[in-house]
Amino acid sequence: MHKSLSSSESKCCRVCVSLGIRSYSIIIGPNAMEEAVIADHIFGHRLMVVTNEIVERLYFETVVQNFKDFQVDKIVLPDGENIKTLEGLNVILSALLKGRHDRTTTLVALGGGVIGDVAGFAAAVYQRGINFLQVPTTLLAQVDSAVGGKTGVNHALGKNMIGASHQPSIVISDTMTLKTLPKREFAAGLSEVIKYGLIADKCFFDWIEDNLDGLLSHDSNLLTYAIRVSCQIKASIVSQDETEQGHRAILNFGHTFGHAIETFLQYRDWVHGEAISVGMLMAMRLSVLLGGISETDFERLKVMLKRCGLPTSPPRLMTVQDFNLNMMRDKKVMGGQLRLVILETFGLATVTAEYGASNLQKVLTINCVAQ
Amino acid sequence: MHKSLSSSESKCCRVCVSLGIRSYSIIIGPNAMEEAVIADHIFGHRLMVVTNEIVERLYFETVVQNFKDFQVDKIVLPDGENIKTLEGLNVILSALLKGRHDRTTTLVALGGGVIGDVAGFAAAVYQRGINFLQVPTTLLAQVDSAVGGKTGVNHALGKNMIGASHQPSIVISDTMTLKTLPKREFAAGLSEVIKYGLIADKCFFDWIEDNLDGLLSHDSNLLTYAIRVSCQIKASIVSQDETEQGHRAILNFGHTFGHAIETFLQYRDWVHGEAISVGMLMAMRLSVLLGGISETDFERLKVMLKRCGLPTSPPRLMTVQDFNLNMMRDKKVMGGQLRLVILETFGLATVTAEYGASNLQKVLTINCVAQ
Repeated sequence: MHKSLSSSESKCCRVCVSLGIRSYSIIIGPNAMEEAVIADHIFGHRLMVVTNEIVERLYFETVVQNFKDFQVDKIVLPDGENIKTLEGLNVILSALLKGRHDRTTTLVALGGGVIGDVAGFAAAVYQRGINFLQVPTTLLAQVDSAVGGKTGVNHALGKNMIGASHQPSIVISDTMTLKTLPKREFAAGLSEVIKYGLIADKCFFDWIEDNLDGLLSHDSNLLTYAIRVSCQIKASIVSQDETEQGHRAILNFGHTFGHAIETFLQYRDWVHGEAISVGMLMAMRLSVLLGGISETDFERLKVMLKRCGLPTSPPRLMTVQDFNLNMMRDKKVMGGQLRLVILETFGLATVTAEYGASNLQKVLTINCVAQ
Repeated sequence: MHKSLSSSESKCCRVCVSLGIRSYSIIIGPNAMEEAVIADHIFGHRLMVVTNEIVERLYFETVVQNFKDFQVDKIVLPDGENIKTLEGLNVILSALLKGRHDRTTTLVALGGGVIGDVAGFAAAVYQRGINFLQVPTTLLAQVDSAVGGKTGVNHALGKNMIGASHQPSIVISDTMTLKTLPKREFAAGLSEVIKYGLIADKCFFDWIEDNLDGLLSHDSNLLTYAIRVSCQIKASIVSQDETEQGHRAILNFGHTFGHAIETFLQYRDWVHGEAISVGMLMAMRLSVLLGGISETDFERLKVMLKRCGLPTSPPRLMTVQDFNLNMMRDKKVMGGQLRLVILETFGLATVTAEYGASNLQKVLTINCVAQ
C-alpha cells in the first residue's frame, strides 16, 4: 500500500535503473542539484551544459556550483519544442565542434523534456557517443523523458521519429525546480504520473486520488514520493526491455491517440501532457469497450484529470479521419498493423492488435465533435 | 603465407564479423549480388533501397532481382560527398516517413562509402533503429566503410563528427561492380587495402606488391582475395573493440593526417583514399623517425602508392599550421592531447601520444612545401 507521508521525510531519495553496465541512479528530492554527488559520473575535465533561456536564468548558477572542478561551457537555446528538430540538434553539435570538445566531454541536459531529448540525442551522435547527465526541471521530464534513455527529435511528418537509445550516467531531479513551473506544465506532468497508476499500480492511482490536492499545491514530500514511485515503475519496465522490443510499449498508454492530436495541432497550442490526458481517456474508453475496465473507473480517471485542469476531449476541429491518418504513423505500427496499449484490468496494461477495428472507430466517433 | 591464385577459385567467399548477437557475414565475389541469399536477413515485407543516380542506373535492376518477394521502394540521391550531411540524412528520413515505413522496414545501402555511411546512419536513427543491409559498390566501401558498423555524416567543422554505431545484418560485396569504378576511385580503395598490410600483416603487403599489376587490371580472383583478407583483418580488429575504446583506432593509420588534408580541401578535389595515401606516408615517416620502420620499407610503400597512381605529398598550398590546426579536431584527441597511430614494426600498429612533438613537427615540415 502507498503510505501517507510526514514532513520529517523531506530529503533526497534514489532510484536505480538496472541496465547492466549502463545502470544509473536517479536522485530525487528538494535541492537534489546541490546535494547530488556528480563528480563520479564525469570522466573528463570539460562539461557542456545545454539549456534554454528560461531555465538558464533560473538554475544555471545553482547547477554550476556542483561543477566547480570542471571547465564548463554552455549552450542556451530558445524555449519551446521548435528546437527539438535536426536543426536544433545541429546547433548543439556545431557548438561542441566550435568549442573543440572531444569524446571526453560530458554533456549536461538542464531543462525539460525538449532539452533532455535533443541534448541526449546530441550526446548519442556526437563523435558516435559521449557521456551525459540529465538534470530535468519539469515534472514531465522528471517522471518520464529523463528516465529510460530514449533520445531524439521530431520530424515535420511525425513526432519522435528520429532518435537513439542512449543512457545518461545519472539523473538529478530537483523538486524545488517545480515551484517555478507554469501551472499547465505541472498538470501535464501529473498526467504521466497518473498513467503509471493506470498501467502498473492501482494502489498508486488510489494514493494520487487521495493526495491530489497536496500534489497540486506542490507539497514537497508528496511530490518526491510521486516522482519516486513513477521512476520506479518506469525503471522496472525499462530494465526488462531497454530497446523496446515488446513490454516497454505499455508506457505508451494513451500516447498513440495523444501523438495524433499533437500531429494534428502541429505541436502547437497544447503541451504534450495535455494531449496524453485526452489520449489516456480514449485508451481507457477502448478498454471499457473491451471489458477490462468499468464505467466507474473510467469516470474516476476523467474526474481526476479535470481536477488537474487537464483537457478531456480532443481539439474541437479534429475529425475521426484526422485520427486515423495520424495514428498510422505511430512507431507501434508493425507491418501496416496498428497496435494499441489497453488496460486488461485496472493497473495492468498490454499491447495488442486485437482490439477490433470497430471498437477503435467507436472510440474515435464518441470523442470527435467535428465530422 | 599468402598464396598465388588459380582461376578455378573464381567464386564467392564469406567472412564473418563476430559481434555476439550482432554478428553478420560479408559475402565477397563476382556476382555476389545474384548469389547471396539475403531473405534470411530481412524481417518484414518492405525494403527501402538508398542509392545514388550513377549506381542506380548500373545496379539497381540487378540487386532488385534478389528482392522479388518484397515491396521495394528507392531513394536516389545525387552522387558525391555533399549528401553525407544532416541535410542528406533528412532526405532519407523524410522519404521513409512519406512512404509510411515502420520499424519492420529494411534499409538497403547500395553504393559507395558515402551512401553506406549516410544510409547506415539513417537506419540507426529512424525510429531509433531499423534493420539494414550493405551492398557496397566501390573498393573502398568493400574493404573499409561497409565493415564495422560505423555510420555517420560530416559537419562543416569536421569529417565524420556525427554518427552512430549500427551493424548491418549482411554485407554483399560484388567484385563485378568494380569494373565500372573510375580509375581514381579504384586506386583510392587500394590505399586502404595496402593499409591492412602495413598495420597487421606484412606478408599481405608482400603479396600486394607481387600482385599489384593483376589487381590494377581488375583480375577477379586477386580482387576477391584482397578484399577477403582486408575484411578478415578489419573484422578481427572490430570484433575485439566494437565501440572503439582502444585497439580499433589502429585502423586509422594515416587517417589523422589524411583527414586534415580533406578538411583543408573542404572535402573537394581529392577523394578519401588519396588523402589517406599521403597520410599513410606521413605516419610511415613518423614511424621511421621513431625507429620502428626502415628507410627501405618507407620507399617500398612510396613506390607502391605511386604505381597505384596515388598522390604521395600533401596539396601544394597546405602549410604546417594547416595540419596542426585541422589535426586537433581528430576524434582521437583525448583531453587536448593528440594521439597518433604509428608502426612499432612493419605489420604492427599502435596508438600513442608518445611520438614526441618535435618528431611530428619534423614530419609536417618535410612534407609541406608551402610556409
